This record gives sequence, structure tokens and C-alpha cells, in this order.
Amino acid sequence: MNFSFLKEKAFQSLENKRYLTLKNILQDMNPADLALLFQDMEKNDVYIVFRLLPKEVSAETFSYMDSEMQMHLISIFSDSELSEVIDQLYLDDTVDLIEEMPANFVSRIIKNANDSTRKMINEILKYPNDSAGSIMTVEYVYLHKDMCVKESIEKIRSVGWVKETIYNCYVTDSRKLIGVVTLLDLLTSEDDTKISDIMDTNIISVNTYEHRESVAKKLSKYDFMAIPVVDNEERLVGIITFDDVMDVFEEEATEDIEKMAGISHNDESYFKTSVFKHVNNRMFWLMFLMLSSTITGLIIDNFQLQIATIPLLVSFMPTLMGTGGNCGSQSSALIIRGLSVDEIQLKDFFKVIFKEFRIALVCSIILAVVNGVRIYLMYKDIQIAIVVSLALIFTVIISKIIGCSLPMLAKRLKIDPTIMATPIISTCVDASSMFIYFTLATKMLNLA
Amino acid sequence: MNFSFLKEKAFQSLENKRYLTLKNILQDMNPADLALLFQDMEKNDVYIVFRLLPKEVSAETFSYMDSEMQMHLISIFSDSELSEVIDQLYLDDTVDLIEEMPANFVSRIIKNANDSTRKMINEILKYPNDSAGSIMTVEYVYLHKDMCVKESIEKIRSVGWVKETIYNCYVTDSRKLIGVVTLLDLLTSEDDTKISDIMDTNIISVNTYEHRESVAKKLSKYDFMAIPVVDNEERLVGIITFDDVMDVFEEEATEDIEKMAGISHNDESYFKTSVFKHVNNRMFWLMFLMLSSTITGLIIDNFQLQIATIPLLVSFMPTLMGTGGNCGSQSSALIIRGLSVDEIQLKDFFKVIFKEFRIALVCSIILAVVNGVRIYLMYKDIQIAIVVSLALIFTVIISKIIGCSLPMLAKRLKIDPTIMATPIISTCVDASSMFIYFTLATKMLNLA
Repeated sequence: MNFSFLKEKAFQSLENKRYLTLKNILQDMNPADLALLFQDMEKNDVYIVFRLLPKEVSAETFSYMDSEMQMHLISIFSDSELSEVIDQLYLDDTVDLIEEMPANFVSRIIKNANDSTRKMINEILKYPNDSAGSIMTVEYVYLHKDMCVKESIEKIRSVGWVKETIYNCYVTDSRKLIGVVTLLDLLTSEDDTKISDIMDTNIISVNTYEHRESVAKKLSKYDFMAIPVVDNEERLVGIITFDDVMDVFEEEATEDIEKMAGISHNDESYFKTSVFKHVNNRMFWLMFLMLSSTITGLIIDNFQLQIATIPLLVSFMPTLMGTGGNCGSQSSALIIRGLSVDEIQLKDFFKVIFKEFRIALVCSIILAVVNGVRIYLMYKDIQIAIVVSLALIFTVIISKIIGCSLPMLAKRLKIDPTIMATPIISTCVDASSMFIYFTLATKMLNLA
Repeated sequence: MNFSFLKEKAFQSLENKRYLTLKNILQDMNPADLALLFQDMEKNDVYIVFRLLPKEVSAETFSYMDSEMQMHLISIFSDSELSEVIDQLYLDDTVDLIEEMPANFVSRIIKNANDSTRKMINEILKYPNDSAGSIMTVEYVYLHKDMCVKESIEKIRSVGWVKETIYNCYVTDSRKLIGVVTLLDLLTSEDDTKISDIMDTNIISVNTYEHRESVAKKLSKYDFMAIPVVDNEERLVGIITFDDVMDVFEEEATEDIEKMAGISHNDESYFKTSVFKHVNNRMFWLMFLMLSSTITGLIIDNFQLQIATIPLLVSFMPTLMGTGGNCGSQSSALIIRGLSVDEIQLKDFFKVIFKEFRIALVCSIILAVVNGVRIYLMYKDIQIAIVVSLALIFTVIISKIIGCSLPMLAKRLKIDPTIMATPIISTCVDASSMFIYFTLATKMLNLA
């Protein structure tokens, strides 16, 4: 039964106040889908329907809701209802919740958490945003090296329900992480085998302060389901599971795409962000780049005489600036992405420039010939055709070189390469392209 | 011990031909790291070192290598060595390998696979590229609804080693998928419980022909470790695991970023792609957009008289075209990304346009005031300042509207919205912006 069918049935029973039927329909639905169902509900119905869910399902559904819906529910929950939900939530979901709520909600949530949860929340909250510590969970299974397989499986069977994953277990010795053992290893070993004999001691872990993007890359490189998080003394403090990493990939890609288009990133969705917040996110680069285009304007100022003599020259400016901008953004997009997925290293600087130079040379000659012929056919002026074509060749080469080198220079200076994308590059390209074009025109058409 | 340390030690022992030491070092390394180690090795050493690896590790390492290295090894493997590696590979890795190899290698691989593997390979190869069928594996654990927990765990213990995952098991009845049961469910149930009593019958699956991007989204939405793949008759034919999906996320993001910059995507890395292939990937859009900029040129042609009279007008063209381009790419990037992560739906068309209109209004007024003051201060010409500022307001509004509506129109026409990105939009924006600018200048400065 698919989601839209169940959803329709659910809304029908809700309308007719057939709560028993509704309860049965809800039981057939997945928490992620339930959260979507609540999103489309009248505010007044949300609380009633939420109370119809079984306890475990209700907390998981809660974790999939957006923050507005979560705030609505928290504001109508009694203290005991709130602490019930928090008890059932996985710790990393509680931390996510706290990070998104306004201060008065946070204090109510922390107040209603039980002592051990509160302690763990505070532990995680002290790590900086986007660090491994801030996205980890402390609900993992740990074993001792002297335990045997049978004991270990029994331990897992007894504590499994409250752990985020039981498929990777961690072996610790006075809190130090000394080995990893998978449930597959346990199940395919003899009952009396010692953990120390089957554990993998070649541990790959991340530090609490490592950036979440680097965590995501490691997990994906090794195809791990979970990766242990250790502190500076190699003590195990938590784990990060694949599901949290999938979200990181998506968010980081969104952030890159936005930054490349000159937009500050914010976590809210497009529609949830207010008009003024949108303006705020976009204004900095627009203003910066509008003002920097003054430079190109000043360069053109110097050629007013030439422009007055042959106004036709102006008609080819869009072609030059447009093609330059496109060439530059092609190169920068490839290089930025290459840097971000570690396909390109900083040491490849000159190799990249040489490659882009050769690509630019071939591209520019093809473009210049086509454009030259086009101009000659349309205006029957061979001299102008040559000037524009030569300027185009220079523009393409310069824009590809700028497009590939700015992101790499930024990375070298430990600035985020993505902000060196299209907008900045096209400003540099415009200025140099116009200077070359009008200088060439002046010299070759004897306009001085 | 970290990778670079082990790598250095490995190369030292290799140089001194201390193969026993080398073998011990290799045993401490993860297959993903081993693959990187081979990448830096002399071609002649690769085969020797590969034979030092334990059988299971060697196949996994092989699966992490790039296709060039894989081809090198296959070409020196004897038939029996090749079939040994194929036997140890997970089926989906074998299929990946086949998809990347040239024809003569493919036939050798298929020839050296055993009968059942060959049958499964052919099964998967018939699905279109990028479909769920093409990335699934058929190595999953299936159970029968009448089995009890104890029997099921025994089955998993006996077959677990050759399955891609044992943590999700699938319950089938005459090949139809009727339920899913996790290893956690099994371990936390009594030994004599029937599978039919604990299995989850509310199954979320994907069809063999579903696009891999939609598979990735589903897996991430539900935080699944694996998702079952069924054919049109709901029969279970395979599963897709989270590790394959993490790669999909990264590749799809790269593809989006490239397309948005007007580059055709290819699977090879930046350096592995030849100069001519790069030219080929970039030429189409460069040529298309260069020729379409002719339209802007033709519009400007009509205003030669005005340009000759006040050449200063030309100095403000870069500001107008640049700001328009940036505004357009900001809007299109947000909308394209929003469509791709399902945050924005097609039915929101007018809502988006109205939102972008309001954002554009606020942005344009701020920009126009700043730019107007700047022009007045620099050139002491209030009339030109007003003309440019008015043109800027129109340009910003038009470019934001074009920037948000073109990707949505593309999606409506079932064209990929990403190709409606920066390049096309800036062409439309340039043409309309120049038309408005020179028309305003003609009217307001009495230049007709």
C-alpha cells in the first residue's frame, strides 16, 4: 500500500472521527511517512493523532518532523509527555532537536530529560557545530576483550533495543578503543572464542573535532556502517552512523552549490526562509560584485573616443563577456568539485593550469573562427572580425586560467574555494577581457 | 598507525625485497587504503605485492582500485587467478567492473566466472544504466515465513560470509517479497518465534527500473541500511545497500554542479580525461551561448546613434549585465537544488515567482540606490544616474524571475532543470537588460 493511498484513508477517518480505524491505518505507516502526514494536518488535529501512535513510533515520528511542527507539539505537551518522548528518542536526534529550538524550548527539553540523558546531551553540546562530536551518538555497544562470543551475543540481545546500531561493536580497555568487532564476526565464530581473538585491531576512527565533511568522506571511502569517534587520548566517546552521513552529503552539496552561486547558506528550506532573510543571504555578493564591476566600467571609460568613432564595437561586448564568464565558470566548477572530492590536490597546481591552457587554446580557436566568420558575414568588415576573434582567444584563455587558479589559490590560503566561483571570476574576466578588446581595437583599427 | 606511516614502511620493505615484513605490514591495512598504495607503485611491483595479500583481502582491494589498475592486473592474471578474484568479489562489484572494462576484458571476465555468477551477471547487465537493477546485488539473505528465529539465525550463521549484508533479511513466498526482518528483531526475539510473527509487512521497496537517484533519496528518507528491489510482479530480485547509495549521492551532486556550469558529465576523473574530451564536454554550451549572445549584439546595434552621442553609457553595461547574471544564477541555483531535493514542487510555481519578485524588489532598490549615488558622485550627472538605476531595478527583477522560472518550466517539460542554469539564464538576462537600458536612455536622455 503506498503512501498517498494510506494518507487519504487516514484523513477520511480523521474527518469522520473514526479514531480506531485511524489508529490501525497509522500502524501500517513508516515514521518518515507519518511525519509527512502530520505536516498536512490541521494544527488542532496534530496532538490528537500523535497520541494515537504507539510510544516507540511516536518518538521516531517526532524526530522526522520539521522544527516548526516539533515546536508546536512541545508547546502543547505536558512535562510528563515531553519527557516520555525524549526518553524514547535516540540521543543524536535529541541533540539535533536542541540545536534547532529557541532558548526557552531548550531549557524545557533539558529539564524534562532524565539525569543520564541530560549529562550526555551536555557532553555532546560542547562540541563545535559541524564537528564529529556534534553529530555523534553515545548509544553504542561496547564489549571487553576478555568476553567470549556467547557472552557478547547475550549482551547485545539484552541492550540492543536502546542502541543506535548493534552491528558494529567496540572493544574498550579502560575507555581506550582497542578493537572493533562486527555482529557478522560474532555470529560466524564459535561460542567460546575470545573477543580479543576475533576483533579487528586495525581501527579507523575520527577525532571529536574533525569536520563532519571529512567524517562523511572517511565513512564513504571505507564503506563503513558506523565509525568510532575518539578524543585526543584515543578514548572512545561515541559513534557516527551511515544515516547521519547521508544527510551530511546532501547538505554539503547544497551548501557548495549555493556558495558557488554567491549565496550565504542557511539551514532553513526555501519557503521557510523569509524574504528579508533571502535578501540578506544574497545581498553581500551582489553588492560586492556590482561595486567591483566599476573597475570594468573605469577601463571602458578610457576608450570613449574609440567607442564614439566605431559604436559597432559595443555590439560584441556581450559575446566577449558572456563567453569569458562561461569559460571561467566551467573551469572553476570542475576544479572546485575536484578539490572537494579530493580528486585534485594542491600540488597539481601547475598541472591543472597547463591542462586548462591547452583546453582553452583548442576551445578558443574553434570559437574565434566561428565568431569571426559570423561577424564577417553579417557586417562585411574583416578588420573588426579579426579584432573580435583575437580578443575572444585571449578572453577564453585568461578566463580558463583565472577560473582554475583562483579556487586553488583560495584553498592554499585556507579560504573556502567555493566562494571563488562564478561571480568573482566573471568580474576578473570582464575587466581583463574589456581591456584587451579595446586595446586591440585601438591598435589594429588605428583609433588612437 | 596511520596510512602514510604504513605506506612508507611498505615501500621501504618492497625496495629491500623484504617480502615477509611487507606481508605483515599489508595485513594491518584496510582494503581501501591498500588500493591507494597500489596506485603509487611501479607497474612491475603491483603483481608481486598483490599476490602477497590474503585471498579475501585481495579481491576486496581489487574492487577499490581504479579501472586502469584493474585492467593492468587482469591483463597479467592467469585464467585461474582471474576466476579466483571474481569468485571472491561481491556480485555488484563484478558488475561495476564489467561496466567499466573494454569488450575484450569483459569477455575474459565472464568466461572465467563460474556458472551461477555468470548467470547473475547477465541478469543484472540487462538493466539500463543508472537504474536500481544495475546497481543492486543479488547476494542477500532470504527467509521463509514459517521458519522460527533459531533456524533463521542458524541459516544466517552458515551463509553470512558470502552475503553483502546479513542485517536485513527478506521473507519471500514463491519469490514474492512479503516481509522484512532485521537481525536486531531476530536477536531480541525468543528462539521459537515464527518469522511471520515478527516480520514487518509494511514493505518499502524500489522497482528494478527506478532511477538510482530516486533509490538514494528513498534510502536516505527512511534511514535504511538496505532497500529491496522488486520487479513489476513484486518479486524480490535484489537489494541495494547504503554504501552504494553514498557513492550515488556524490556522483549526482558532481553531475548537477557540472551541468549547472554548462559541462557535459563524464565518469572519468579530471586528469584521466584527455584535453580533447574536455574540449568536447565544454564546447556545446560555449558555442551555443556564444552564438545566442548575437541576439544581445543585434539589440545593441539598434542603439549605435545613442552610443556615439553618449559613449559613457557603455561604461555601465558591465554592471548591468554582471548584476543581472549574478541575480539570475542565485535564483536558479536555489530553485534547481530545491527541485532536486524535493523541497520545491512544480505546483509551487507561482508561489516561487511571487517570492522571488519580492526578494528582487528589495534587492534591486538597495542596489539601485547605492549604484545611483556612486554614479552621481563619480560623474556628477543625475540623469544618467537615474537611467542606470532604473535599468538596474528592471534587470534585477527580470533576472530573478527568469532565473526561477526557467528551471521550473524545464522540469514541467520533463527536461533536466540543471541545464537551465547560469549560462542560458545570463543570455536571456543580457538581452532583456540591454534592451531596457538603451530604451530608457533613449527616452529619458532625449536621444531618439
